[in-house]
Amino acid sequence: MDLQPILDRIGAEMQAAPDRGRVADYIPELARVSTDHFAMAVCTADGQTFTTGAAEMPFSIQSVSKVFTLALALGRLGDQLWSRVGREPSGLAFNSVVQLESEKGIPRNPFINAGALVVTDAILQGHQPREVLGEILRFLREAAGEDDIHINKAVAASELAHGHRNLALAHFMAAHGNLRCPPEATCGTYFHQCAIEMSARQLARAGRFLMNAPGMPRLVAPARTRRINALMMTCGHYDGSGEFAYRVGLPGKSGVGGGILVIAPGRASIAVWSPGLNAQGNSQLGTLAVERLARATGWSVFG
Amino acid sequence: MDLQPILDRIGAEMQAAPDRGRVADYIPELARVSTDHFAMAVCTADGQTFTTGAAEMPFSIQSVSKVFTLALALGRLGDQLWSRVGREPSGLAFNSVVQLESEKGIPRNPFINAGALVVTDAILQGHQPREVLGEILRFLREAAGEDDIHINKAVAASELAHGHRNLALAHFMAAHGNLRCPPEATCGTYFHQCAIEMSARQLARAGRFLMNAPGMPRLVAPARTRRINALMMTCGHYDGSGEFAYRVGLPGKSGVGGGILVIAPGRASIAVWSPGLNAQGNSQLGTLAVERLARATGWSVFG
Amino acid sequence: MDLQPILDRIGAEMQAAPDRGRVADYIPELARVSTDHFAMAVCTADGQTFTTGAAEMPFSIQSVSKVFTLALALGRLGDQLWSRVGREPSGLAFNSVVQLESEKGIPRNPFINAGALVVTDAILQGHQPREVLGEILRFLREAAGEDDIHINKAVAASELAHGHRNLALAHFMAAHGNLRCPPEATCGTYFHQCAIEMSARQLARAGRFLMNAPGMPRLVAPARTRRINALMMTCGHYDGSGEFAYRVGLPGKSGVGGGILVIAPGRASIAVWSPGLNAQGNSQLGTLAVERLARATGWSVFG
Amino acid sequence: MDLQPILDRIGAEMQAAPDRGRVADYIPELARVSTDHFAMAVCTADGQTFTTGAAEMPFSIQSVSKVFTLALALGRLGDQLWSRVGREPSGLAFNSVVQLESEKGIPRNPFINAGALVVTDAILQGHQPREVLGEILRFLREAAGEDDIHINKAVAASELAHGHRNLALAHFMAAHGNLRCPPEATCGTYFHQCAIEMSARQLARAGRFLMNAPGMPRLVAPARTRRINALMMTCGHYDGSGEFAYRVGLPGKSGVGGGILVIAPGRASIAVWSPGLNAQGNSQLGTLAVERLARATGWSVFG
Repeated sequence: MDLQPILDRIGAEMQAAPDRGRVADYIPELARVSTDHFAMAVCTADGQTFTTGAAEMPFSIQSVSKVFTLALALGRLGDQLWSRVGREPSGLAFNSVVQLESEKGIPRNPFINAGALVVTDAILQGHQPREVLGEILRFLREAAGEDDIHINKAVAASELAHGHRNLALAHFMAAHGNLRCPPEATCGTYFHQCAIEMSARQLARAGRFLMNAPGMPRLVAPARTRRINALMMTCGHYDGSGEFAYRVGLPGKSGVGGGILVIAPGRASIAVWSPGLNAQGNSQLGTLAVERLARATGWSVFG
Repeated sequence: MDLQPILDRIGAEMQAAPDRGRVADYIPELARVSTDHFAMAVCTADGQTFTTGAAEMPFSIQSVSKVFTLALALGRLGDQLWSRVGREPSGLAFNSVVQLESEKGIPRNPFINAGALVVTDAILQGHQPREVLGEILRFLREAAGEDDIHINKAVAASELAHGHRNLALAHFMAAHGNLRCPPEATCGTYFHQCAIEMSARQLARAGRFLMNAPGMPRLVAPARTRRINALMMTCGHYDGSGEFAYRVGLPGKSGVGGGILVIAPGRASIAVWSPGLNAQGNSQLGTLAVERLARATGWSVFG
Repeated sequence: MDLQPILDRIGAEMQAAPDRGRVADYIPELARVSTDHFAMAVCTADGQTFTTGAAEMPFSIQSVSKVFTLALALGRLGDQLWSRVGREPSGLAFNSVVQLESEKGIPRNPFINAGALVVTDAILQGHQPREVLGEILRFLREAAGEDDIHINKAVAASELAHGHRNLALAHFMAAHGNLRCPPEATCGTYFHQCAIEMSARQLARAGRFLMNAPGMPRLVAPARTRRINALMMTCGHYDGSGEFAYRVGLPGKSGVGGGILVIAPGRASIAVWSPGLNAQGNSQLGTLAVERLARATGWSVFG
Repeated sequence: MDLQPILDRIGAEMQAAPDRGRVADYIPELARVSTDHFAMAVCTADGQTFTTGAAEMPFSIQSVSKVFTLALALGRLGDQLWSRVGREPSGLAFNSVVQLESEKGIPRNPFINAGALVVTDAILQGHQPREVLGEILRFLREAAGEDDIHINKAVAASELAHGHRNLALAHFMAAHGNLRCPPEATCGTYFHQCAIEMSARQLARAGRFLMNAPGMPRLVAPARTRRINALMMTCGHYDGSGEFAYRVGLPGKSGVGGGILVIAPGRASIAVWSPGLNAQGNSQLGTLAVERLARATGWSVFG
């Protein structure tokens, strides 16, 4: 299938879209990015890559990083990770502490903030933050097949300076014995992981291992990619996951920087970026763009 | 693919399984069904039907009926239904009233009880319960391609006698203006719809329209079957939906009678029945059986 | 102490007060009462009665009735009532269903709606609604020492027509086995009890038994009046109880009709009425008036 | 009134009581105190002091300190403190974070942990922890009229080592802009304030200013003591405040070390100590002892 005309059309539509959402304003470094940006990249199972828009411009991947740290943690710890974090959608905002209280410090899933902190904490245990961040970067570089992927230290510092909510989650879990490292260390590592910058093209390439298709990088076992995809479907967009599944029909993981990684199993890895967010904190135009791509390609997993 | 050996093996394994869950005990009519029962039926896109176990024995479909009333309501009302019910997983039990309070009487999705009551209420508006129940039965019979599908009146009466929780949900939504018919009428219709009995074979056949495959009954537009499947994936197993997606990788809808309807888009419609339930209120062996079927066939939508 | 000058001053201040709150609008019969009204009546331990404003005008006592049904229920059932209802402030709105779910159908206290329904249900068990309403009226007439106290049937009918929220609470408790009568019967009785009309003078007189002073009517044992007063202090103003204790320093019970019964133990029974409500659903000017009375008299129980 | 025989009797009953509750086990320093201890001290308005039991033995006052820091904060900041903390009972456990989330970082009252952290933070702003702790100790010593009141540094260190839950609350409020000092500084000060040790006799003496009686120390204005007493009545025992008001009928503040300060306005300041706690985290025998004292003296404020 020649996707380029489809991407060109979607790119043009997105550039012209009037309602572009609002950038995250909780840290200054993200707040100053323009909502004008749009980029999309698609790596298909036959090895091709298609792009539209600013597909080479690095952006802050933020929570999209949770997919890769989950893959790393499962590779290192296997299923024992699931004694510390659940696999259910939360029905609440990404940074809610309510369920932690009624569920004794076990986060509902690895894609809400509390769950991602547990995942990072699990990788960090017995290591230095610097080592772990190096390992995360190596994983991403191997997945993407290129080396020019870095942490934006100004963003990481800004996250740290405004990180009280995540520190609250971390201390809360520590109080329940569900954190192994000091909350400051776990949060510090997490803030740096969120501050990784990638272009849409790099992110689409880095997601290829989740396609589970021949010839793609194989970083984790197929049984595990299926399960990561399942979690992305039910939990990847916080309290907008049901809506994303309904509209797009593909597993995806969004970040507050406006990026979304979407997997069409067996077919494609898709990255989209537009910094303006909708009410649920997911990229407004990014969601719309992959919805149109899924409709044009018939890639919905739901028939 | 010849599924019969696979089903035979799964059927034998399920008959021998020691941990069979517990039957629902909230109404006497369901509480007295034996956990010994097991049945599975698979209708494939090429028109074949495979079964194992007690596939001709009728059971109470209970909440599996919500899939069919949703299809009916969408056919009649279209997307305006979504002003009255959401599309997000709830993160809570099937009969919780907590979110109704914070979300002003709008249920989170059409598969929790409150949402299903809104769907039934939407079909009922302007009609008599008897007419609506007739319409639901006609829809099921047409979908299954056979007529021997009925309501068990003893079960319906038993539900009514123990129906305070659903009446509470209905009155709560009425207080918020999100019910159009008297709560007693809406609940009465709902209790009867839940008391429909079907065999596993009938249920698998009735689900074929959701496969979205050529030659299958076409009761709603393909764009709509995709969306119903998406809702089954994210919300079809209450607060066990994430787990079902993780283990099975297919959209499904469970009922407290022990039945589950599962769709492999483009490939198969699957019905499984075993009355013992797990902690989330979904069939213990039914879940296990479709997990094994999905693994044996590679039908997971997640790669 | 000659209270008349104090009451005259307070009455004049209240008539001139610009911010009079908003009348309850959930039933038409209450919504059409003017916020211009103000009345206050004080019965002192030495047998005198002082009034200001429209102290002879009947108003709908609404939830103030809960004090009297609690006294009746304790008289009939004694402390076994407390197995069905708690004694703690709720921290939530008067009609919340959230805590009922986490606390298995046991309301937090007898003054939130759910708790008052349990109290009425306890009195109703084994009787007809008509008998119980007769008993409640007899109790009030005896307490007030006069007979001209009646139920406004138009208000009762209006409550019934808009009573879905209370029916939801009742069915919810029935589902947990914490209602003995049919929800419709309990709610019907409750709606009539809330529709009792009394003047401020009558209400102040009816509250004299809670003063626990010599020469006052003795309808329940002193140990019980103390405890009813304690409950009025901690729970009598819903989620504004802390504020009322802080500002006024006396136990009181408010009603959505704008009435408040306040007890100065050993000293006085006070009734105040002004239909405009504050954000917590308690009489705006009524609260202000008793705050000024308490300050002028030094009647705060807190020193 | 000669209280000594009453105290002797209560002391004897408490020494013999079989059900003594359980000591707090969240920090080792508190967990190793024996439940055998019992002490009670009463300072009356006429200047006398009565004691029974181990009334000279210092114990960790823990949350009883919140009464004194509230008095200090109100003295320094006046009513502007109330923009940062509410005055309503919470209906939840002392360390719950649930309401903070729905109420945007404003704690319900100054006696739950989150509220007490705000109070300490308000005193700390612009000062060093060491200065503030000195000020708290000076306030207590002046109130008690004696100097031998100190901080147990081992307890403070133990609180810090197990302080994740309070750090979570502090960071959560910082995320909402409701903390002025770094969470670590506010919590550090708070942990030390909780680690103050006093004997029952000292504590009863330190509470005399809340009696609002002639000849007693006057550390804050009478209008303020009334209001502090009101808050102790509605919020002083966490989610057991309603029960304490119902049983005892006096304002009080409990601590997890097993101490309770109780005020009979105009009459007495009472301190009781027994380390075993009930299910709500309040001293089991302490509550029982003041209930019996209130009954014997008729000091209930409720008549």
